[in-house]
Amino acid sequence: MVPVRTHLDCYPCFVRQAVAAARLAGADAVAQQHAVRSALELLGEVDGGLEPPRIADQVHRVLRAELGDGDPYLAYKEASTSAALELYPWLTERVTTAPDPLAAAVRVAIAGNIIDAGPTDDVPTVADLWAATQRVLAAPLAIDHLAALRAELERAPWVLYLADNAGETVFDRVLIETLRLPVTYAVKSGPTLNDATRTDAFAAGLGTTARVMEIGCDAPGVSLDMCSSEFRRVFASAPLVLAKGQANYESLSDAGPRVFSLLQVKCPVIAADIGAPVGGVVVRRAVPAPELVEV
Amino acid sequence: MVPVRTHLDCYPCFVRQAVAAARLAGADAVAQQHAVRSALELLGEVDGGLEPPRIADQVHRVLRAELGDGDPYLAYKEASTSAALELYPWLTERVTTAPDPLAAAVRVAIAGNIIDAGPTDDVPTVADLWAATQRVLAAPLAIDHLAALRAELERAPWVLYLADNAGETVFDRVLIETLRLPVTYAVKSGPTLNDATRTDAFAAGLGTTARVMEIGCDAPGVSLDMCSSEFRRVFASAPLVLAKGQANYESLSDAGPRVFSLLQVKCPVIAADIGAPVGGVVVRRAVPAPELVEV
Repeated sequence: MVPVRTHLDCYPCFVRQAVAAARLAGADAVAQQHAVRSALELLGEVDGGLEPPRIADQVHRVLRAELGDGDPYLAYKEASTSAALELYPWLTERVTTAPDPLAAAVRVAIAGNIIDAGPTDDVPTVADLWAATQRVLAAPLAIDHLAALRAELERAPWVLYLADNAGETVFDRVLIETLRLPVTYAVKSGPTLNDATRTDAFAAGLGTTARVMEIGCDAPGVSLDMCSSEFRRVFASAPLVLAKGQANYESLSDAGPRVFSLLQVKCPVIAADIGAPVGGVVVRRAVPAPELVEV
Repeated sequence: MVPVRTHLDCYPCFVRQAVAAARLAGADAVAQQHAVRSALELLGEVDGGLEPPRIADQVHRVLRAELGDGDPYLAYKEASTSAALELYPWLTERVTTAPDPLAAAVRVAIAGNIIDAGPTDDVPTVADLWAATQRVLAAPLAIDHLAALRAELERAPWVLYLADNAGETVFDRVLIETLRLPVTYAVKSGPTLNDATRTDAFAAGLGTTARVMEIGCDAPGVSLDMCSSEFRRVFASAPLVLAKGQANYESLSDAGPRVFSLLQVKCPVIAADIGAPVGGVVVRRAVPAPELVEV
């Protein structure tokens, strides 16, 4: 696979994430400074050829260690889930009363992708999430592989759903409840950024809706070589994979036609790579890796 | 003096400047990566207690060395001056036909402060500068010490004018031509960021309007201990100092009542320090340094 490469423009964003994490951890000024400097030092030495989620993994690992806080985004995640749960009845109603419930549910799931402590630091409010949902429900798809996704959903016996962020989990639940298919919902095995863990999936009510499974590592995205052999087997056997968000796209953009990315474009680097503007609402079938293309 | 301290939020911005400088230098991808990494390494080690212009100085010094380009912003500066010169007749007319030409000229000078390769990377166009001028001419002053400045200008025998950026120089010229006072226009002794040098001042037509003087160093802002003894003498003897832009504010915010900052607030760090929102149009008299306050 040829995942998205880290762009020079990712570096200011990694540093911004370091500042945000230090602040969210509630560390004192000296500890914040120390943590950010450690992230800067790491970024000065890191292998720039890695894709962004792998570098973000290293950055947030250093931050958690330096801040002495295993989960700096805990309050951010809890607030996100809480805000999303307030909207849940309304989200469900929007889907069940829609002329095309699947299309509406896919858009709701993508609306939830606005929750992302990567590109922005602000804790999303109920009003933010409501506005994002209204926007995404009405927006034309910047990349529209929905018909292909619908066809695959009709024949797939089950779906592997790669979670992205806490709170977004609630929006994912609305889509999963619409699919009426067995879903394995894959979450991180430990905290990184505001990525969803098992706890966040259960807090969103997904414990009874899907089979919640850990990927076997605590890095953003899905870097398969870092995941457990159990998860790799599940990934390999999945007839259909729904990959939420930018980091999973960065890991899997060339993972082949079983994989569909559902996301909002939230930064210029992804916009240039995916070919859709910032703010774009995307349902994109992954292309085959170049080495697999038949000529 | 107690200048503005570097905030953690400055670090992502320094890194963004490094990426922009590398790109503007037209270096190849490997050289760009190398330069940005060198800036990251420096930032991981730099004395975080320094004010922002001193850290920016070190960052841009490393970048110029690593990129093998003594002036990565040269084309940016030339384009800025060129765009500003296209507006010059219109700027002059706006001032000479205004009911209060001094107030209009001060606002024109502040409008030119939109030209700043620090917080943004985009080369300003004539349309950008025209729109910025219209906005600043119409905006209420977020901090309004204009009456005090006017009074000081009535009694000052001459003015020391601390330049900020290339192109902004043209807007400064409009104010200087309105003052009808001898003006010493202080520029950097060498390139740093898009700060104005002697060449940029002359390109703006200031060679005949003011006495152009170099500050004796090539760092952003005015860190007096880094400047020449000649400039320090001029600074010490100046009856009135006009300090353009954020970096000069960062250096001189507490330099006492001789110093007036003319600027647009362009980042949240300055906004919090100065007490005006981003976008705010500011004419601010410097406060005395705390150790000089009489109780």
